[in-house]
Amino acid sequence: MDHFIDWRESAGVNTEKFYKTTLWQGDHVSIGLNCLESNQTQIVHAHQGADKIYFVLEGRGRFTIGAEEREARAGMLVVAPAGVPHGVTNVSAERLSLLVAIAPGIK
Amino acid sequence: MDHFIDWRESAGVNTEKFYKTTLWQGDHVSIGLNCLESNQTQIVHAHQGADKIYFVLEGRGRFTIGAEEREARAGMLVVAPAGVPHGVTNVSAERLSLLVAIAPGIK
Repeated sequence: MDHFIDWRESAGVNTEKFYKTTLWQGDHVSIGLNCLESNQTQIVHAHQGADKIYFVLEGRGRFTIGAEEREARAGMLVVAPAGVPHGVTNVSAERLSLLVAIAPGIK
Repeated sequence: MDHFIDWRESAGVNTEKFYKTTLWQGDHVSIGLNCLESNQTQIVHAHQGADKIYFVLEGRGRFTIGAEEREARAGMLVVAPAGVPHGVTNVSAERLSLLVAIAPGIK
């Protein structure tokens, strides 16, 4: 698999739910890309035994992390420790693109 | 620990070597920030049993990943699978800031 990855080449749209794709899969971590159009939502869910990190690449989302709810825009890191419920809604007019790391990786 | 992190608030300079700090430490992944001034280098090294992911936040670096050597600029993802030697030099005039994930995390 390539060691140099441009996420823009993998961006996309899914009008049904939201777009997700895997950018890289290692032995210890999975790297993915999620693209949410305006008003699309990743419903609150939790990963038992896996930490999840979002990095906001573009746009602006309203994140839920446990009991906390807060907006984050491009350049922000949002962290959901293992077991903590998390989700996000695109509250802006432009696309919300998220780099997502899950460790240990999903195989 | 905070779930919403702005890396810009943790950026810094280390004139001796290069600047590094931890942004978040989970059970399964460590998230760090590395800032290299012009011509500063992270020498080639390897992490046995841990995947390492760089995301270029700003600037431009020349990366070595195994036998491959290539430049990457802001917005690029650079991946060093467990055991693969990797390093980077800031080949530009501006600061090179890197978001770094290591999984499993260093405790």
